[in-house]
Amino acid sequence: MAKEITSQQEDYSQWYLDIVKKADLASNSKVRGCMVIKPYGFAIWEKMRDDLDRRFKETGHQNAYFPLFIPKSFLSKEAAHVEGFAKECAVVTHHRLMNDPNGSGIIVDPDAKLEEELIVRPTSETIIWDTYRDWITSYRDLPLLINQWANVVRWEMRTRFFLRTTEFLWQEGHTAHADKEEAVAESRLMLNVYADFAREIMAMPVIQGEKTAQERFAGAENTYTIEALMQDGKALQAGTSHFLGQNFAKAFDVKFLNRNNQEEYVWATSWGVSTRLMGALIMTHSDNDGLVIPPRLAPIQVVIVPFPVKEGGEKIEAAVSEIMVGLKAKGISVKYDNDEKTRPGFKFAEYEMRGVPIRVGVGMKDLEKGVVEIARRDTKEKGTVALEGISDYIENLLNEIQENLYQRALNRLNDGITVANSWDEFTAAIEKGGFVYAYWDGTSETELKIKELTGATTRCIPFVAPAEEKGSCKCVLTGVDSEHRVLFAKAY
Amino acid sequence: MAKEITSQQEDYSQWYLDIVKKADLASNSKVRGCMVIKPYGFAIWEKMRDDLDRRFKETGHQNAYFPLFIPKSFLSKEAAHVEGFAKECAVVTHHRLMNDPNGSGIIVDPDAKLEEELIVRPTSETIIWDTYRDWITSYRDLPLLINQWANVVRWEMRTRFFLRTTEFLWQEGHTAHADKEEAVAESRLMLNVYADFAREIMAMPVIQGEKTAQERFAGAENTYTIEALMQDGKALQAGTSHFLGQNFAKAFDVKFLNRNNQEEYVWATSWGVSTRLMGALIMTHSDNDGLVIPPRLAPIQVVIVPFPVKEGGEKIEAAVSEIMVGLKAKGISVKYDNDEKTRPGFKFAEYEMRGVPIRVGVGMKDLEKGVVEIARRDTKEKGTVALEGISDYIENLLNEIQENLYQRALNRLNDGITVANSWDEFTAAIEKGGFVYAYWDGTSETELKIKELTGATTRCIPFVAPAEEKGSCKCVLTGVDSEHRVLFAKAY
Repeated sequence: MAKEITSQQEDYSQWYLDIVKKADLASNSKVRGCMVIKPYGFAIWEKMRDDLDRRFKETGHQNAYFPLFIPKSFLSKEAAHVEGFAKECAVVTHHRLMNDPNGSGIIVDPDAKLEEELIVRPTSETIIWDTYRDWITSYRDLPLLINQWANVVRWEMRTRFFLRTTEFLWQEGHTAHADKEEAVAESRLMLNVYADFAREIMAMPVIQGEKTAQERFAGAENTYTIEALMQDGKALQAGTSHFLGQNFAKAFDVKFLNRNNQEEYVWATSWGVSTRLMGALIMTHSDNDGLVIPPRLAPIQVVIVPFPVKEGGEKIEAAVSEIMVGLKAKGISVKYDNDEKTRPGFKFAEYEMRGVPIRVGVGMKDLEKGVVEIARRDTKEKGTVALEGISDYIENLLNEIQENLYQRALNRLNDGITVANSWDEFTAAIEKGGFVYAYWDGTSETELKIKELTGATTRCIPFVAPAEEKGSCKCVLTGVDSEHRVLFAKAY
Repeated sequence: MAKEITSQQEDYSQWYLDIVKKADLASNSKVRGCMVIKPYGFAIWEKMRDDLDRRFKETGHQNAYFPLFIPKSFLSKEAAHVEGFAKECAVVTHHRLMNDPNGSGIIVDPDAKLEEELIVRPTSETIIWDTYRDWITSYRDLPLLINQWANVVRWEMRTRFFLRTTEFLWQEGHTAHADKEEAVAESRLMLNVYADFAREIMAMPVIQGEKTAQERFAGAENTYTIEALMQDGKALQAGTSHFLGQNFAKAFDVKFLNRNNQEEYVWATSWGVSTRLMGALIMTHSDNDGLVIPPRLAPIQVVIVPFPVKEGGEKIEAAVSEIMVGLKAKGISVKYDNDEKTRPGFKFAEYEMRGVPIRVGVGMKDLEKGVVEIARRDTKEKGTVALEGISDYIENLLNEIQENLYQRALNRLNDGITVANSWDEFTAAIEKGGFVYAYWDGTSETELKIKELTGATTRCIPFVAPAEEKGSCKCVLTGVDSEHRVLFAKAY
């Protein structure tokens, strides 16, 4: 199996594609830019979703569901918003098919044209704020803390599995507040929820910060982001949270009576993460032998493979059965693969490819000594471990693997930030890969020029600035006095 | 609150609408036929979904995700299927909007017309079987047991909350098998899963049976159904499971090598339930005071309301706190409503409207006697109960309410079946409401004629025939000799 994967060093993009396919995460469909998420990939996404959903509920949010379609006129109500999404949306114009009277098969029925076209939601601010107008009348109705798990469509020209697909799955939080401070606090809170999730569950460290005006969400007053660093030195925006000000409340006329009985526009946030996180997960941990996933997201945490024997098979079965009972009692998901048609070596490669964190090999000779073979996916280390107390051992090892993956990724992130104080330093650092932390004069023109010259974009102004020696405060490109440094990187 | 609900006797349709709105389950959107599922309604749906999902996984199914869009040509590949869905589908024809050069706002960009139109999935057999062609090559790949939770769109002309909406949420299972027997067994197994779920979780008894050819799913060789009886005497199809034969395998050329190394077409099933179940739930248990929901689906199972006191409030708080600890330890969801701005009577009506199964009233006088007031939603009975052992009492009462709701609905279903042996008996029974069990000559012509004359349709040929005296075997309409009785009813 493993030999069928292109190495990261040879071609990182091809390696990524190979992992997605060989680890059975997704496959292409006949619909342009739309993928099929296969059961193994979907099981990982379900674990992400369930954990995020728990965090949303713990912070007081409720789920709801809003329509897939958005009337064309809604999109136009917020000027920046329509500008951001009009060029890449799926438009429903008819509601019926018919048999071609000329016999050429099934055609769109011209008599079934919609009066107003419907857009397949690229994001739901407009339809949701149109609804909130009916739900909100007084400060007593606020805050309104709602989340939706949904599919959305953005007509992307170049698509890649998980990272950029025409249709994708996500959650979108949409909250309404009585004042600005509370809305800003909410958008920061949810960014923290994302960062905690990334660290604790995905074992993926992120940098939290604020987007530049140029990189803001269409319709937001401020966009906060978590940025991760992939193994090839490119950044990946893993989640965003937006302070929307009163923009959507004004566009959809959503007002409330405050405690002083005065009418005011409502303040808003929105925030989302998507199946893009699957791409981030792959490119944070995996290697040339296949997928590597942290134990907390692994659909199968432990696989047990028996070594074939001519006789004494019942002893192996008995030992395995005892191990499984112990693991299941601890809530550890375990699979026993006793398929006799497949050799152990082939199974090893297969589970390595799928990123199962721990493999337990059970053979007669070992059993006689009271031990089994244990191999961990992250470090490839192998050793024998006593059967006695094995479920505690495995439980600890799963935690250790989770922690090791995080530390490995954290070291890479920390090593991947370069401070640049001149244009030469900047271009060299971008060329090398990773984040480059540099002064920038604060203009969109300079951002665009830097992108044109180097391919790098501003990722964020970090909340917590990386430690650095004091340098000049001049923009690396224009030399103009600058207020603060920004993180630049080439990005997915 | 309650007085704002139209009574069932006065106008059942308006009563239903009132329940949906006043119990905060759903609201209308500006998009034709699409509703918004509000947090309280969505919380009930989430409980249904989670329980069904567990049952699917326990029976060996895995979740996956397939594209929202279906190329127009795919729909046409199975003749009956396109016939069934072509007249009610949302068609995507363009992928971009633009500013009107004449200044009339945002218009569809005529240059962004799709080469082939895309249909928003009304159901996913076609896109899924197009994918299965790549996934299945040998008998070793079978059975393939996959489920998808998704939104689908059918352009309905007349819509009603939950029962019939243009967009709805559902799950669709799509399985592939090496032989006919296994596929038929799968479709029957999943119908059983639905019936068990309806009985155990929704407290809703159903009749299992087979649809007539006329009422089959478009593209199926056999459709099995669970049929429930609503309070107004109308039937509701609550879930269906289809044996698809080799129809889709042939349409999409999905073959496998069997154990004898011969190529064969794959056998298929599909099965689904949807947010329609929310409508069934409402019309099975609710009353003129609002929603009634079985404890296993209640987002809040117990609400605790304190009676206001001038002093001694801390004793009430302490008692409530102890009750809540006890209930939470048992996994019972409990809400403490100590909002001082609202009178207890208003709260009582509110929680009655929302169908909270048990209400606990905590007042000083009762506390001094070591008791609290308990009211159950299903029977409206009220009484005092000792604080000691109260969590056990409530746990038992929740089970009793669940069971009582089921028994009540079961009695109604059993009383709602009339055996008819003549046309007069038939029309009188249909007029009265409920299921009518009558001989039918087996032709679609007769079915359609009966529908035209009485408004009743065939619901199913029950697997288990209701007990009956032996009557004539003549079709109630045509008098032609008939093979078996069919259940007829007016239906949602």
